[in-house]
Amino acid sequence: MKQSMTFIPTLREVPADAEVKSHQLMLRAGYIRQNTSGVYSYLPLAQKVLKKIEQIVREEMERAGASELFMPALQQSELWQESGRWYSYGPELMRLKDRHGREFALGATHEEVITSLVRDEVKSYKRLPLALYQIQTKFRDEKRPRFGVLRGREFIMKDAYSFHDTFESLDEGYQKMFDAYQNIFSRCGLDFRAVIADSGAMGGKDTHEFMVLSDIGEDTIAYSDTSQYAANIEMAPVVETYEKSVEEISDLEKIATPNQKSIEEISSYLNVPKEKCIKSILFSVDDRFVLVLVRGDHDVNDIKVKNLYGASVVELATAEETLANLHCVHGFIGPINVPENIEVIADHAVAAIVNGICGANEEGYHYKGVNVERDANITQFADLRFIQEGDKSPDGEGRIKFAKGIEVGHVFKLGTRYSEAMNATFLDENGRTQPMIMGCYGIGVSRTLAAIIEQNHDENGIVWPLTVAPFQLHVIPVNVKDDTQKDLAEKLYKQFYDQGYEVLIDDRKERAGVKFADSDLIGIPIRVTVGKKAAEGIVEVKVRKTGEAFDIPVAELSEKIKQILGN
Amino acid sequence: MKQSMTFIPTLREVPADAEVKSHQLMLRAGYIRQNTSGVYSYLPLAQKVLKKIEQIVREEMERAGASELFMPALQQSELWQESGRWYSYGPELMRLKDRHGREFALGATHEEVITSLVRDEVKSYKRLPLALYQIQTKFRDEKRPRFGVLRGREFIMKDAYSFHDTFESLDEGYQKMFDAYQNIFSRCGLDFRAVIADSGAMGGKDTHEFMVLSDIGEDTIAYSDTSQYAANIEMAPVVETYEKSVEEISDLEKIATPNQKSIEEISSYLNVPKEKCIKSILFSVDDRFVLVLVRGDHDVNDIKVKNLYGASVVELATAEETLANLHCVHGFIGPINVPENIEVIADHAVAAIVNGICGANEEGYHYKGVNVERDANITQFADLRFIQEGDKSPDGEGRIKFAKGIEVGHVFKLGTRYSEAMNATFLDENGRTQPMIMGCYGIGVSRTLAAIIEQNHDENGIVWPLTVAPFQLHVIPVNVKDDTQKDLAEKLYKQFYDQGYEVLIDDRKERAGVKFADSDLIGIPIRVTVGKKAAEGIVEVKVRKTGEAFDIPVAELSEKIKQILGN
Repeated sequence: MKQSMTFIPTLREVPADAEVKSHQLMLRAGYIRQNTSGVYSYLPLAQKVLKKIEQIVREEMERAGASELFMPALQQSELWQESGRWYSYGPELMRLKDRHGREFALGATHEEVITSLVRDEVKSYKRLPLALYQIQTKFRDEKRPRFGVLRGREFIMKDAYSFHDTFESLDEGYQKMFDAYQNIFSRCGLDFRAVIADSGAMGGKDTHEFMVLSDIGEDTIAYSDTSQYAANIEMAPVVETYEKSVEEISDLEKIATPNQKSIEEISSYLNVPKEKCIKSILFSVDDRFVLVLVRGDHDVNDIKVKNLYGASVVELATAEETLANLHCVHGFIGPINVPENIEVIADHAVAAIVNGICGANEEGYHYKGVNVERDANITQFADLRFIQEGDKSPDGEGRIKFAKGIEVGHVFKLGTRYSEAMNATFLDENGRTQPMIMGCYGIGVSRTLAAIIEQNHDENGIVWPLTVAPFQLHVIPVNVKDDTQKDLAEKLYKQFYDQGYEVLIDDRKERAGVKFADSDLIGIPIRVTVGKKAAEGIVEVKVRKTGEAFDIPVAELSEKIKQILGN
Repeated sequence: MKQSMTFIPTLREVPADAEVKSHQLMLRAGYIRQNTSGVYSYLPLAQKVLKKIEQIVREEMERAGASELFMPALQQSELWQESGRWYSYGPELMRLKDRHGREFALGATHEEVITSLVRDEVKSYKRLPLALYQIQTKFRDEKRPRFGVLRGREFIMKDAYSFHDTFESLDEGYQKMFDAYQNIFSRCGLDFRAVIADSGAMGGKDTHEFMVLSDIGEDTIAYSDTSQYAANIEMAPVVETYEKSVEEISDLEKIATPNQKSIEEISSYLNVPKEKCIKSILFSVDDRFVLVLVRGDHDVNDIKVKNLYGASVVELATAEETLANLHCVHGFIGPINVPENIEVIADHAVAAIVNGICGANEEGYHYKGVNVERDANITQFADLRFIQEGDKSPDGEGRIKFAKGIEVGHVFKLGTRYSEAMNATFLDENGRTQPMIMGCYGIGVSRTLAAIIEQNHDENGIVWPLTVAPFQLHVIPVNVKDDTQKDLAEKLYKQFYDQGYEVLIDDRKERAGVKFADSDLIGIPIRVTVGKKAAEGIVEVKVRKTGEAFDIPVAELSEKIKQILGN
């Protein structure tokens, strides 16, 4: 492709409103332009990379046995009413009416469409399993679009759906997709982790998020420093065991602790380590209140509370609710003498606290010498806290570290959530009607594009992995007014093209400095510079990633490039 | 691809609501399913064909020097307000509001978006010309969606836009696109014509529609039986010359013609050929009335009237308007003694009528012996009629024939319609600010898919041209319970795959009759049937298009297939 004829509007300045590197670089290197908040045009270079990513996705989906189809963005409201999501999805689902006043959703995801499609055609276990995918534009009206195409309102997604007659078949299909995702993100040159995630209210069991490790990630991943284990921090179970300290059991004693509310304050005021303090938090769990205890240096993981009760909603009690239930303000509540209607549960670590400190349910007072098994009515000890760095990895191998991650993919066992709601059934081998068992599998294609840049850049611009680079070679005649340079550059351009390379040639009448700066920004893996030595038949080959540069006689060029690309 | 694992829901019955062949076959062969009126899912086979068509489009667009990009479907209303189309587009443009109440159009076309994008980045003639294209889902809320994906509300389109500094450059860019379109539709195996079309109110000059010849087409094409000339019937100029018959000029005479209103009635009542009758039609042309005369066997082409006056709106006068202006009812109006405020114009053919017949502007009466140059006040003789079959071709070569066509592509010189409205300017060589000169170029990709089927099918199903077939080879083990057949079929499947063919294998446990019927429906060019002779190492090769079938030893199979595909 000739740079003079295409559209790569580079910028010298860092755009003021772009916070993260990938967003800045995509703007500066002429990959995207914003149309309106969260809505972007992908310019020719970005489109080339998207097609590369899509091709990788297609190859791995086909290998996993999935067939590509293409479903509509316009989705009649009736389908979403069947699943119930017309009412539950909220303002993120964009809605519109057609000329006849009929209501439509703009596809945010396609569970409803695919379920209706398969339900109408597949009636027998003989036609299962079935895996279908598409690569398609999705619409979600994000409250706060940000980071460029990392969190947009219109984006490109690969979404796959699988249908099964048994849960064993779902497990197999899930594993195939899981493996395909590993391949896809590896081939995209990403440093990522498959992370155990929260299956939320979807009713599914297994779910993994594929997280690209990055400081700008919005999610925290807990991973093992020695094994493959990784989980969303909310999901990581704590497998630590705690031993009671060897000391004499004291009597319970109420003490004045005026204005000492937080664990930090109490610990410092009483000169007691945080590990000896008991943190008591009142939660509203569906229609009741539960007091949750964790050790002072730990934090309550409300998802674990939610899962323990199988609850729909778990929320911190408000100040009013705390006062009404415990007759005490925040900061002084505790597990002793709690009204009978309030259940008290505690993290395992709390059981090991000897002679601890806790709130006295009276403003300005705490207890010391607390031993919960003696002094409080604990219904249950359980794993209720967030994992911390340094904790044992739940798989028993190594210690936990934290990292931030950008979610680029998600594999999910849906089970019968949609098939039951939408009556997608099949006849099993015994002629019995059964709901289909489903899985769904998403990849943020445009987000992956940005995530690759987030992990592959330097101070001069993007540094594309070869597999997804918009071009492999960038030919730069330093001075196009010099016929020798111009002719040699064009000859090489044609030669590379004929050899099957994707080549960009900077045939613009620009200064060398501008061309080199643009080239670094754009980030094509190999640059072939045709400069003054063109007359001697010598060009420079420069590797974008390492910065290595070689003067090479034209005769040896093909071999050299093959060699560099081979590495 | 294994048929047991993919999604090809074929139907035995012709769906009741599918009127045209392509729609019927796409449903029956499992290529599409309707989601709601005018909105379809493209199932795996259709998706494969779409990808083939898209690849052809991409190759030809790149060859024409256009770069691919990808613009959003969500288009802020402000852009459409700038061009004025927010108000003029009508209910076909789908509109919605985001969570903040901001208004958006769902992209029906992208002139506004591309113009704003290029205007913000291109400031100098040095960056022109520029050609950009995308392949994207478009939304148009058709009043009457029909014929399956031929006229849908959500469809896939390739839209390209070019930007130029001079009209000569636009001409060049237009020609490149024109040539690319010829290549694209030829490569898709279509019988089509590039047809001169009406540039409408867009202000452009040249415009061609690419029409696939088909009886179900909604447009009539006038084409030469010997040359490449083709035009929309509205656009074809008439180049016939007319000679006056050699007869004595009669006197004008008013005659009673009670209830004889139509040309047919008058011609028959007076026993005069239609060619001697003068058809008089009153039109409202913008803010005035014009009486248009054509020969009795001809029809007025109102676009020619419109173009003659450079008018915005040309409509037939209503009965009330006729009565008010000519003091006479429809059926008896004529060019003699017309009030001065009404201009009378006539088609060239009328000038050659000697002693003709026309209405007398008095109910129940006509004139005979009419010679318009003597008896009427004709302002102008011009080409005002529709061309007819048998007329001379406007390019002077051959005679005109009519055909129906399905529009699959459109190339259009937009000129400065959008750049002026949206202030997309550049500095020319002399430093003067000029509006960019634009062209736009569309292809209905999903419509092309249907058009190919419309032209390529027989009574048993689709007959794909090789270039766009979803697969090249269809391997059918007749009886998968027979291990010899099953093993050989799978061996061949793998072998073909390794040779680089796209292969579908019907590994389903279905009766042979079902498999053959499905295979014919689906329409893959070559079928390799592995039946009873598998034990002898013999399979059958059948060519879908011709029906030819050969028994071939497996050893000679590769060569035979290469040979057939080579033809």
